[in-house]
Amino acid sequence: MRILISLVSSSTPTGLHLLSFSRRLHTKISPFSTLIGLKPPPAMAASEDSLRRSLAEKQSSIESQGNTVRTLKAANAEKATVDEAIEKLNALKLDKSVMEKQLQAAVNGNGPDGSINKEAFRQAVVNTLERRLFYIPSFKIYRGVAGLYDYGPPGCAVKSNVLSFWRQHFVLEENMLEVDCPCVTPEAVLKASGHVDKFTDLMVKDEKTGTCYRADHLLKDFCNEKIQKDLTISAEKAAELKHVLAMLDDLSAEELGAKIKEYGITAPDTKNPLSDPYPFNLMFQTSIGPSGLSPGYMRPETAQGIFVNFKDLYYYNGNKLPFAAAQIGQAFRNEISPRQGLLRVREFTLAEIEHFVDPEYKSHPKYSEVADLEFLMFPRERQISAQSAKKIQLGEAVSKGIVNNETLGYFIGRVYLFLTRLGIDKDRLRFRQHLANEMAHYAADCWDAEIESSYGWIECVGIADRSAYDLHAHTVLSTVYDRPLQYLTFYGGYQKLVIAPVKKELGLAFKGNQKKVVEALEAMNEKEALDMKVSLETKGEVEFYVCTLGENVTIKKNMVSISKEKKKEHQRTFTPSVIEPSFGIGRIIYCLYEHSFYMRPSKAGDEQLNVFRFPPLVAPIKCTVFPLVQNQQYENVAKIISKSLTAAGISHKIDITGTSIGKRYARTDELGVPFAITVDSISSVTIRERDSKDQIRVDVEEAAPVVKSVTDGHRTWADVWASFPHHSSGSAED
Amino acid sequence: MRILISLVSSSTPTGLHLLSFSRRLHTKISPFSTLIGLKPPPAMAASEDSLRRSLAEKQSSIESQGNTVRTLKAANAEKATVDEAIEKLNALKLDKSVMEKQLQAAVNGNGPDGSINKEAFRQAVVNTLERRLFYIPSFKIYRGVAGLYDYGPPGCAVKSNVLSFWRQHFVLEENMLEVDCPCVTPEAVLKASGHVDKFTDLMVKDEKTGTCYRADHLLKDFCNEKIQKDLTISAEKAAELKHVLAMLDDLSAEELGAKIKEYGITAPDTKNPLSDPYPFNLMFQTSIGPSGLSPGYMRPETAQGIFVNFKDLYYYNGNKLPFAAAQIGQAFRNEISPRQGLLRVREFTLAEIEHFVDPEYKSHPKYSEVADLEFLMFPRERQISAQSAKKIQLGEAVSKGIVNNETLGYFIGRVYLFLTRLGIDKDRLRFRQHLANEMAHYAADCWDAEIESSYGWIECVGIADRSAYDLHAHTVLSTVYDRPLQYLTFYGGYQKLVIAPVKKELGLAFKGNQKKVVEALEAMNEKEALDMKVSLETKGEVEFYVCTLGENVTIKKNMVSISKEKKKEHQRTFTPSVIEPSFGIGRIIYCLYEHSFYMRPSKAGDEQLNVFRFPPLVAPIKCTVFPLVQNQQYENVAKIISKSLTAAGISHKIDITGTSIGKRYARTDELGVPFAITVDSISSVTIRERDSKDQIRVDVEEAAPVVKSVTDGHRTWADVWASFPHHSSGSAED
Repeated sequence: MRILISLVSSSTPTGLHLLSFSRRLHTKISPFSTLIGLKPPPAMAASEDSLRRSLAEKQSSIESQGNTVRTLKAANAEKATVDEAIEKLNALKLDKSVMEKQLQAAVNGNGPDGSINKEAFRQAVVNTLERRLFYIPSFKIYRGVAGLYDYGPPGCAVKSNVLSFWRQHFVLEENMLEVDCPCVTPEAVLKASGHVDKFTDLMVKDEKTGTCYRADHLLKDFCNEKIQKDLTISAEKAAELKHVLAMLDDLSAEELGAKIKEYGITAPDTKNPLSDPYPFNLMFQTSIGPSGLSPGYMRPETAQGIFVNFKDLYYYNGNKLPFAAAQIGQAFRNEISPRQGLLRVREFTLAEIEHFVDPEYKSHPKYSEVADLEFLMFPRERQISAQSAKKIQLGEAVSKGIVNNETLGYFIGRVYLFLTRLGIDKDRLRFRQHLANEMAHYAADCWDAEIESSYGWIECVGIADRSAYDLHAHTVLSTVYDRPLQYLTFYGGYQKLVIAPVKKELGLAFKGNQKKVVEALEAMNEKEALDMKVSLETKGEVEFYVCTLGENVTIKKNMVSISKEKKKEHQRTFTPSVIEPSFGIGRIIYCLYEHSFYMRPSKAGDEQLNVFRFPPLVAPIKCTVFPLVQNQQYENVAKIISKSLTAAGISHKIDITGTSIGKRYARTDELGVPFAITVDSISSVTIRERDSKDQIRVDVEEAAPVVKSVTDGHRTWADVWASFPHHSSGSAED
Repeated sequence: MRILISLVSSSTPTGLHLLSFSRRLHTKISPFSTLIGLKPPPAMAASEDSLRRSLAEKQSSIESQGNTVRTLKAANAEKATVDEAIEKLNALKLDKSVMEKQLQAAVNGNGPDGSINKEAFRQAVVNTLERRLFYIPSFKIYRGVAGLYDYGPPGCAVKSNVLSFWRQHFVLEENMLEVDCPCVTPEAVLKASGHVDKFTDLMVKDEKTGTCYRADHLLKDFCNEKIQKDLTISAEKAAELKHVLAMLDDLSAEELGAKIKEYGITAPDTKNPLSDPYPFNLMFQTSIGPSGLSPGYMRPETAQGIFVNFKDLYYYNGNKLPFAAAQIGQAFRNEISPRQGLLRVREFTLAEIEHFVDPEYKSHPKYSEVADLEFLMFPRERQISAQSAKKIQLGEAVSKGIVNNETLGYFIGRVYLFLTRLGIDKDRLRFRQHLANEMAHYAADCWDAEIESSYGWIECVGIADRSAYDLHAHTVLSTVYDRPLQYLTFYGGYQKLVIAPVKKELGLAFKGNQKKVVEALEAMNEKEALDMKVSLETKGEVEFYVCTLGENVTIKKNMVSISKEKKKEHQRTFTPSVIEPSFGIGRIIYCLYEHSFYMRPSKAGDEQLNVFRFPPLVAPIKCTVFPLVQNQQYENVAKIISKSLTAAGISHKIDITGTSIGKRYARTDELGVPFAITVDSISSVTIRERDSKDQIRVDVEEAAPVVKSVTDGHRTWADVWASFPHHSSGSAED
């Protein structure tokens, strides 16, 4: 596996919240995993670098052989000799063309067919999504607006389901304080947060037409185009271009401008010369009230609404830390030239959590519930040493200090559970740690949940420990805070781990090594200490590695006391830290579409049918009801079932068209509807599961309750399959 | 009951969707109904007009008597005579002061204490709402922004519950197509809708400071102030000012300016002169993309997003009419100077439905489900003839043509059910029909659901039959519609009522009157015809009033055949009509707060406690869990119950503070939490209902299921009360 390391630093040095959904996407080149229904890409071709070198050699061989042929011809050499030389030349050309193909494949990153597969797969998904109105380019009857999309009926239902589950999984489960603040935001707030001054992208203008482009995009496109399409460039040149790509987010306006000049990059549409790059603020600006004197912006994130209410929320929580506030809402970014479809848009839904915590006690009471989870993590060290992401147990990552603290770890675990329960493929989900130069100076740690899609690895959730930065900024800059936040007195009340080595016993056992053993015991982190506590209580003793001794020692129950004590601390004065999981709902949904999509042949085998394998939780419609044939009696039964589904709160659709049952199944599979009830008698009906196509037979009155139990998650399809008679319908899927 | 009739016409003559939430609020003066916990206002005082006349007479008597006293004194009259004259003067003055009080009461509209009660009641509600963070003035640490409010945790939960129920009651129940479109909208769309040109309010500026005011507000305030506080003005002057108030929304910029000059109105803050009124567009303007060449606006309503997608949605619905689309989302209006707290804000949540229907067939298949509802309606005729709203059966209003058509009637009924199920008091809810001059010329009919609050009757839902206006405007003005909407061919398929009089039988029975009877039968509307059908089928004959004969005739079963036939019509070309119910979610919620709020004395009787009587559907938190005393065992039981409540998806709060149980009940009542579980043993607990304060005792394992069943609506509290042992706790509420 080949990972291209880009030592990017954030282009937003104040560490705006855009750390998540930041100015660059981590679309690193990496193998694209198998696409169901499309041919998987073959194994990696020979290395690009050596291919470029061989190709250059081959080219000079061709030139020299060409000269030979010309010389022979000019000298009127014997026909056999000339023919032999020509044959050799043709052989060289053939070799070159094979090499070019190999190189082309190598630069595409995943074998000869890889990029074609990705494109084809994406096209298949996007076609289905657009045709079935999962989304619609906004205002398309007015030629549309780049970067704005509507959610049509099924997309809207998916979004609503994702948000309901988010509320259940985070807000309700953790008793978070949800708030709902306006999008229109006065300048002072976004001045304090840093957005007014720093939330910019570098832009260049076509000097004649005034058309605007993102400067880094033009340079990136130029480099990619050169590397991928120009097979004549030297290995050295290719390396230089790759270096530029890697440094793209670190370049200043001047450096970007210089590169654009050096490479002679012009406006893509007109080939006109370009202006120097200059910063463009990405917030939609407006004016509040009629005077024109109160500038305002459409919020670029929802977090600020929580921070400015911190004091009230703290009071609402009974003046106790920790607590979390949450907000779901629209955010706006006036992108210079949005690309990448649903992933880079000008208006989007964010769901953000701000967990406020005493900076000295970042443990979390429910941490143990997630500590055993194991999933793909991509710590800083592995990125720097060009290794790939690796399955790591969360508890281990926290205890080894890879993840900064328990609370951050807890949220990483909860985000993993949230995404995989939605239907994100766990093998195409990784948690990537920000590199040191990506993070703001004050940030303690930051991890992005990245989901692999046809566009590469997409940052979908950012989970950052932002220390006290935000509350501090608003405390200093707000005008009417009667009692600035940093002087608020917090009454700590938390559980503290107490490790008390019993020196007398340790002295008896380890003599001169006693001090080293004591130090090692005291240095244990919470997880290690609690593990030891359990072992001592159950087994009476435990092997313990003392690194300063370089060996294991045996610790017995009487040698150390480990306990969690309730500590109360009074009148300590500090600014709380904030840990922020921030969810790009639209991005998660788009990735979910890609992960859920597959194609399977129709029964006749003459066409490929599209299916979304949404779990019932996410499915836009939970159930369809079909009368098998057009018939008043069956239609009445269908209506009775429909009524009970409505009463049970199950979104469903009734299809009484005369279309063949197979076509109706196909239509409903394409919307990801997990269950279909077919009315083929007046007393009992069949229920079909989408992915297995298995059918059971149930009484009419049972239809709605059975569907409810499997969509609610109270029963699995397997349970239901085991409890009801099976129905096999040879002709149903025709 | 006195209703001040204002013959208002819409200030938005294109008939923008702001018909709902239009530029004026129908805050007509009307008796304020009983406020629980506050003294109800006494009966209406004597009429204002006659009081002003008597007061003027009394004043001249006082002046004349004053002259008499002065004359007597100057003439050195006898002390007894002077004293008598003075006594008479004083008696006159006393009379005048009594009259002034009566007049003051009369102009306040509801007796001496009415307006004070309203204000005090509102203050009590608003204090509670702010203190418990139902809402928070936005950005208040930066001195806030007028017209912007945050929903704090309980407010946010109420909003989320209201929206969930809206989705269940409308979208799911009616199989509507929900969409979700961006707030940022390009100019062309809002040009077509009329907002760019006509969505304005008239504004005046302080000529020295530049401060802006709404011109009609200044004139309104001046007139109200004069009428209410200046008791010396003549009855004629008072009538003139009232006429101005009534005409306020009809005044042109010139007329408004002239009145402001005539009355010498100056800037309220500085007394500086004012500019002439000029229109100010209420949309927040911005710019899309970096060029500055694409103006955009924050949408002032969500409806346009549906209209521009009509064609795709029609296709999604299988090219069939009727169907409804729905959208929930933020809308924005840059009010000149927002007043009235949560009712007039600059950013708000709208929930809009656009029901598209064949203009020739506006019947509704589910109409019969609401036809029997009876509630307060305020038809045009009753407004014009100065009568008050009246309880009318919906079916009657439709059959008499008061409500234009069945579909409009159906939605009025559904809105009534929606609002009352939320907890809106049905006696303070009325459906007011727009006057002819309030409606746009193309509109067929329009009704507002108005809710009475301390601010008067507030327009909360607008239900309008907008004919083909919107689709037509976008068809004409959109640029890339390949096949304009008005030329779309709709394949009609609908149920048609067929009334077939059997002329032979009628001729035999009625001879020369046959023709008039036939005509009367054919003229029946759907409801009348179906009623007749039922009567004929059950009784064999029915009395039928023939207005052209002026008498009843007896119609027998064999004289007429009435049936509903499925008609198919092909290739008729028309633009669909749209019926639009549009919900101001924030306004509904505010009115709900007022209707749910009451005060009751504490058990000790020493203070008034606040309660919100939210139904469980709406309550922000469904249940609280308290250990009776601080005690590890009870706390553990509380945690176990909390866990099962979370698993059941019941939002709840656990309160383990040492506060007295009475105080904890009071706290939770103030948040409108319907149920409280008190842990007073390790095997069983009590459940208390908020309004009755009744308690039952249940086993620990039963606590969560019982609360779930009553919050889900599967059981009522009465059911539960009948099934479990009662618990009486003498000291609990202390």
